[in-house]
Amino acid sequence: MRKASKEIRDILSTNLKKFRKELDLSQESFAHKCDLHRTYIGAIERGERNVTLSSLETIALALNIDVPTLLTSQKEESNG
Amino acid sequence: MRKASKEIRDILSTNLKKFRKELDLSQESFAHKCDLHRTYIGAIERGERNVTLSSLETIALALNIDVPTLLTSQKEESNG
Repeated sequence: MRKASKEIRDILSTNLKKFRKELDLSQESFAHKCDLHRTYIGAIERGERNVTLSSLETIALALNIDVPTLLTSQKEESNG
Repeated sequence: MRKASKEIRDILSTNLKKFRKELDLSQESFAHKCDLHRTYIGAIERGERNVTLSSLETIALALNIDVPTLLTSQKEESNG
């Protein structure tokens, strides 16, 4: 089976963790909010899953961002 | 099974067609370039498939764009 590149899985992983933490949600709370399984969220955060567009959309929605943002490397915005 | 919203499938569908035509490639030629099946490309262009991140990446690469661009609604750039 085809696998997404490490690079894009890493961007997804980094962004999911970053935005989830900004919402002050544990993996478990976030999974509950998404109606996805906690172990599935954990696997995405470890870059292990080749997620579908529907899962990307569900996750982005729960993070209050859009799918392109979820898949775009976020620049540091401050030196603080 | 969860399904991506019509809206994001439509954006993907519209962009795939738009960028493929800009490269002057038929569905068949594009499918060959991607090493994906022609019927699969056709189904994505009809908004029927819940594609995976790896397929999104393969398609974006073959279109010479990035995955966020593939999933972002493109504004008209001219009135010509």
